[in-house]
Amino acid sequence: MSLLVVGSVAYDQVETPFGKVERALGGSAVYFSTAASLFTQVNAVGVVGDDYNFADLDFLKRRGVNLDGIKQVPGETFYWGGVYGEDPNERETLFTRLGVFADFKPVIPAAVKQTPFVFLANIDPGLQADVLKQMKKPQFVALDTMNFWITGRLEALLEVLKKTDLLFVNDQEIKQLTGCKDIFQGAAKIFQMGPKMVVVKKGENGAVILSGKKKFFSTIYPVEKVVDPTGAGDTFAGGFMGYVGQAGKVDWETLKLAMIYGAAAASFAVEDFSVDRLKKVNLKDIEKRVEAIRKMTNFDI
Amino acid sequence: MSLLVVGSVAYDQVETPFGKVERALGGSAVYFSTAASLFTQVNAVGVVGDDYNFADLDFLKRRGVNLDGIKQVPGETFYWGGVYGEDPNERETLFTRLGVFADFKPVIPAAVKQTPFVFLANIDPGLQADVLKQMKKPQFVALDTMNFWITGRLEALLEVLKKTDLLFVNDQEIKQLTGCKDIFQGAAKIFQMGPKMVVVKKGENGAVILSGKKKFFSTIYPVEKVVDPTGAGDTFAGGFMGYVGQAGKVDWETLKLAMIYGAAAASFAVEDFSVDRLKKVNLKDIEKRVEAIRKMTNFDI
Repeated sequence: MSLLVVGSVAYDQVETPFGKVERALGGSAVYFSTAASLFTQVNAVGVVGDDYNFADLDFLKRRGVNLDGIKQVPGETFYWGGVYGEDPNERETLFTRLGVFADFKPVIPAAVKQTPFVFLANIDPGLQADVLKQMKKPQFVALDTMNFWITGRLEALLEVLKKTDLLFVNDQEIKQLTGCKDIFQGAAKIFQMGPKMVVVKKGENGAVILSGKKKFFSTIYPVEKVVDPTGAGDTFAGGFMGYVGQAGKVDWETLKLAMIYGAAAASFAVEDFSVDRLKKVNLKDIEKRVEAIRKMTNFDI
Repeated sequence: MSLLVVGSVAYDQVETPFGKVERALGGSAVYFSTAASLFTQVNAVGVVGDDYNFADLDFLKRRGVNLDGIKQVPGETFYWGGVYGEDPNERETLFTRLGVFADFKPVIPAAVKQTPFVFLANIDPGLQADVLKQMKKPQFVALDTMNFWITGRLEALLEVLKKTDLLFVNDQEIKQLTGCKDIFQGAAKIFQMGPKMVVVKKGENGAVILSGKKKFFSTIYPVEKVVDPTGAGDTFAGGFMGYVGQAGKVDWETLKLAMIYGAAAASFAVEDFSVDRLKKVNLKDIEKRVEAIRKMTNFDI
């Protein structure tokens, strides 16, 4: 079944020990769509400025991504600049120029209001709620957020979480959001807020999905060189939601595999700057890494 | 096949948010033996002072652990005191009274010099080398170490590593020992130092074993309450080596399962102070958690 993603469409300036790029494709909606479109049809909603070169997204069109929801308006496209240290976890933001993204009001095109699987990328929780109001009974809603909204927009976040099926957070964010030092206790609190499932992302330590008493751990696929970690989380979500959308169901077996497909997708994202590696990947490449992860984690008793 | 462990036999004073114990059983050789003896016959070598109550170790004797190598000498038994915060990773050492452990010179009893599987717990690398000199062609040597020896006794450590088959380290220690920011690159350097295998322990994020190009990730078994994290690493090593010893071989399939049995054993260690929970556990209990871990990590494509 098809997916909707609402998020940022940006240009990134990124410097890592492996090089530097300027005005490279970035933004949560772009990373997400690049991964998810390997699995199922994706509809993207976002905003760009009049400096944005739409031809840069032709590869997404070729993967069947519907870009009708990406509005071009006068002004500058969201531009973010950052530097990573030797340790990919060390990141310094050089600048954040929100540009037209500051006034982003997501408008869901009529033709995609019935999309059954929805991913609300990391944007203001008030806007995330606006999106849901425009949708016609989505079957499954997943939401990503970050410390910035947990601190500054907690009430709005708690409100939209009531209508969320699955929350994506990292290990720091879940502790911040719930006040629990332990992600398992934290997950129990999240379940009281609305979501029936939580995916906790732990960077190089993989991720865990929790639903009721059930837990499933996925590892990363270790790559030779982490050239640029930008977008790994959104790519993980893209692979995850793409797999779920393609399956058209959210039973536990599907969710487990979605975790692994997400991890495999994310491993390609970090192997080059921007979506450079990811856009050359096909489903076979992803499946090879899923099989490699299986060998690195499964065992026979 | 049988195991030898050489390490500390200590009393611990531990305070955590769940309570406080004084003069509780501790030390790497004790945690290791408690876990490993569930799988195979263990011979322990260490030293205690004349304040040590040997009857405390009766439960190990009942599990078939040979304690002939634990020498009692005049003086105080190694006594360590520490406090853990809400986050079990936050630990403050209150005191370290080495006592008779300061002059520990391991003497391997003649009857156990032919033990095929050897675990050199975290002690001075010079003493670890002395142990190996006393052994008669051990089949498999595993070694644990820590930042203290990497900083202060690097030369001796590199010397004993030449005779080591498997190195246990944590994620910080491997970076310190190899200068690599990445554990996978770090492992490649370790292989040049002697060991053919490395187990990298990552605390709450599980562990990974590397051998040549092969990698296998194990997760933790998440317990309700981490009452006392002391000894988790030594218990992991005990479960790991116990499983390997019982199997009598170190092929990849055995090592994978050893990782999981180690994780299962460690999960019991942290559920109560000292070895209080661990000493009540039987192999069936361990196997139940192994099966639970399988459900939380394995998937069918």
